[in-house]
Amino acid sequence: MIYSDTYQDTICAVATPQGMGGIAVVRVSGPQAIDIVAHRWQGSPLQDMTSHTAHLGRVIDSQGRLLDEVVLTLYRGPHSFTGEDVIEISCHGSVWIQQQLLATLIDAGCRMATGGEFTRRAVASRRMDLSQAEAVADIIAAQSQASARVALNQMRGGLSRELDALRERLLHFVALMELELDFSEEDVEFADRTKVTALAQEIEQIIGGLADSFQAGNAIKGGVPVAIVGQTNAGKSTLLNALLHDDRALVSDIHGTTRDVIEDTITMGGTLFRLIDTAGIRHSDDVIETMGIERSFRKLDEAQIVLWVIDGTAPLADIEKFSQQILPHCQEKHLLAVVNKTDLADVQPVEALLGRLMPSHADVIAISARDEKDVQRLQQRIIEAAALPQVDDDTVIVTNARHYEALTHAHQAISRALNGLQSGLTGDLISQDIRECLYYLGTITGQITTDDILGEIFAHFCIGK
Amino acid sequence: MIYSDTYQDTICAVATPQGMGGIAVVRVSGPQAIDIVAHRWQGSPLQDMTSHTAHLGRVIDSQGRLLDEVVLTLYRGPHSFTGEDVIEISCHGSVWIQQQLLATLIDAGCRMATGGEFTRRAVASRRMDLSQAEAVADIIAAQSQASARVALNQMRGGLSRELDALRERLLHFVALMELELDFSEEDVEFADRTKVTALAQEIEQIIGGLADSFQAGNAIKGGVPVAIVGQTNAGKSTLLNALLHDDRALVSDIHGTTRDVIEDTITMGGTLFRLIDTAGIRHSDDVIETMGIERSFRKLDEAQIVLWVIDGTAPLADIEKFSQQILPHCQEKHLLAVVNKTDLADVQPVEALLGRLMPSHADVIAISARDEKDVQRLQQRIIEAAALPQVDDDTVIVTNARHYEALTHAHQAISRALNGLQSGLTGDLISQDIRECLYYLGTITGQITTDDILGEIFAHFCIGK
Repeated sequence: MIYSDTYQDTICAVATPQGMGGIAVVRVSGPQAIDIVAHRWQGSPLQDMTSHTAHLGRVIDSQGRLLDEVVLTLYRGPHSFTGEDVIEISCHGSVWIQQQLLATLIDAGCRMATGGEFTRRAVASRRMDLSQAEAVADIIAAQSQASARVALNQMRGGLSRELDALRERLLHFVALMELELDFSEEDVEFADRTKVTALAQEIEQIIGGLADSFQAGNAIKGGVPVAIVGQTNAGKSTLLNALLHDDRALVSDIHGTTRDVIEDTITMGGTLFRLIDTAGIRHSDDVIETMGIERSFRKLDEAQIVLWVIDGTAPLADIEKFSQQILPHCQEKHLLAVVNKTDLADVQPVEALLGRLMPSHADVIAISARDEKDVQRLQQRIIEAAALPQVDDDTVIVTNARHYEALTHAHQAISRALNGLQSGLTGDLISQDIRECLYYLGTITGQITTDDILGEIFAHFCIGK
Repeated sequence: MIYSDTYQDTICAVATPQGMGGIAVVRVSGPQAIDIVAHRWQGSPLQDMTSHTAHLGRVIDSQGRLLDEVVLTLYRGPHSFTGEDVIEISCHGSVWIQQQLLATLIDAGCRMATGGEFTRRAVASRRMDLSQAEAVADIIAAQSQASARVALNQMRGGLSRELDALRERLLHFVALMELELDFSEEDVEFADRTKVTALAQEIEQIIGGLADSFQAGNAIKGGVPVAIVGQTNAGKSTLLNALLHDDRALVSDIHGTTRDVIEDTITMGGTLFRLIDTAGIRHSDDVIETMGIERSFRKLDEAQIVLWVIDGTAPLADIEKFSQQILPHCQEKHLLAVVNKTDLADVQPVEALLGRLMPSHADVIAISARDEKDVQRLQQRIIEAAALPQVDDDTVIVTNARHYEALTHAHQAISRALNGLQSGLTGDLISQDIRECLYYLGTITGQITTDDILGEIFAHFCIGK
């Protein structure tokens, strides 16, 4: 149960990243936190400690032998992350000491926490709602300024406040409808249908807007998909390196992920870009090979932005030929034609050719990847092409697929209600749609949950959070 | 300079292990710590905060945009780890946020800390001496109860106190000698040579004892080297698994090390054992192959304990033949002959044979690795064979090669002084030896240091400690 008022058991886990470091933090939370830790603590008495104070002392094992000198910080509930009594023990970052510390706490009565259990308890004690809890996981996984900022705003309750305001209006709406229903035998309409319709329209637009923000949200969270294509020797790798060398670019090197699992990402101007591997895309006259290349081209379908890198010294006929292969795949994309090697040749003829070949929505930009000339300008174009909304500290953007799904269902329900109003349906049918809309919004913040949903959400958390 | 009274710059680093986790801790230390962090902090005013208190608030970037919600703990100098003002920022454990937090602090005036720089400052402000600082690194790398305990005792000043007491006695000694020297023209002996000789003998024994403890200390820290040998199918892997399965056994899985680099270690009864890879050691009649096997046998030289695993169902002649290969390599070792497969056969004839073959210092123990029968008894024998001193919270054992080297030099110097006294050398020559002894002891705790020594010591620290 998510809103059970108190948990009976006390949990512990290492909250800091796995491995060896200067220090590590073991977190304990639960009704017995103070009592249990007191059995393993030598220092100023835990019972007398003021909340939010740090104390140097020693942790001992069950036989009273010194385990480590630590700094212990006490957070008394409800003014703690979980809302329960929380103790954080900052120990030396030896893997062995971390294990022993957990072992001695478990021996004294703690239970090992499951993934996300601290956050789950924070939800249970209403320190945060479900969408805020999900934001905690997003913050931890954040790879760019925009994704961190969206997640932080969600954690601080931005989305929750938006949804709460919607719920309130929907409840008002449903009350109007159901009041009418109670008096339906008298065949009067209490609710002014014009006003109610306007209200429904407004709500429908807000929910629709939130659902629509998911496309941007998804790009912010997972990265804007970018494909770099071009013929061999056009300078694709040099360009990529030039983009990476720029101060503002940062290649993510997230611990625990490997190139096999995750694509490369690059952050430019605070926006995360996900590079799509288009290895194998090059020009060929060989029919069989061309078929293979076609297969590779299909990977372009994932891309939002295509960087077509062109060797500015190549024969115009070659470029035109390759354009016939690539352009059909870029109808819906933001295409940037990058004419490379301005250091070696006058590329104006190539630019002129491209001006004729390229669709109107495409950009042409001439650079020298080797000399890193105009690369910053290209970077700026790429950032513009991402066309992500400016994320300030208050922007509400949906980045979570679960929320998007719920919002889509809520949007369908409110649209049905709106149609019902417009086609003169009776209040009971409309009311049912509004209640469905309320239900889906409630699943986002956790007013309405099932253990399945909770299990699914917290399964993705790391232990110790 | 190690004992410069204050550092001018303020340093920052991530103190927790690398990678993603629930939380991470960024540590800031230096005279400007409060001022610098104040520029990036939204929460209760840092200037007014009581030392050792934790505060929820926000860290912002240089443009005032929210970077993360954090818990900040202030430790005012000199009551902090480094002795300076220290601020620990507990942020969400996203790699990106950790990087950004450092970036914004550096932007506000911090410098990135070098490896061990926080501890180095703790030494500079005399919060700890050099041997205690080295113990911090040992604690972080600790892989067993004994190694953690020895390091903890060293960090808490066990070795330092021992050395300080020695220094005091040596200074008294040298004062006596030099007093005599000042009056040497009068040809009197102020120092009672018998008493002084007794004092020198005592000091020589204490230093010798400390130097001798390094052998045990090294085994405690790096693990007691154990080789498991035996013919194919004798059950070596099964035995190893049985040892590992035991509750008291713990295989180390130190992050960042791989099997290619480091040997496997196993902790039994709080003692760390280092398993020597003896792959390739088996019985063969083939001359060429036997030569290869001989090469493998030479790896046995590293071992302190050899577990010879014997198939209790094998023909006696085979066992005898193999014993001729293995026994010559075990002269100086603690040899444990493990007769396996008591579940399959009566192994008494094998035990009787071994009784005749084995040297007197060897043990024979019959087990069934498959049924895990008598494996605990074997484990006990192995722990006994390690013959490590009982490490309680006050045991002083030298585990550091640098300390061992200094103690060896100090021991040579005091031995020369002792010989000088016994052979009636003049006070000035003896005094010179005692001063040399003092010098070497001083290098251990850091009264005498060079930047080279310091650089060498702190180079092995992780950043953030």
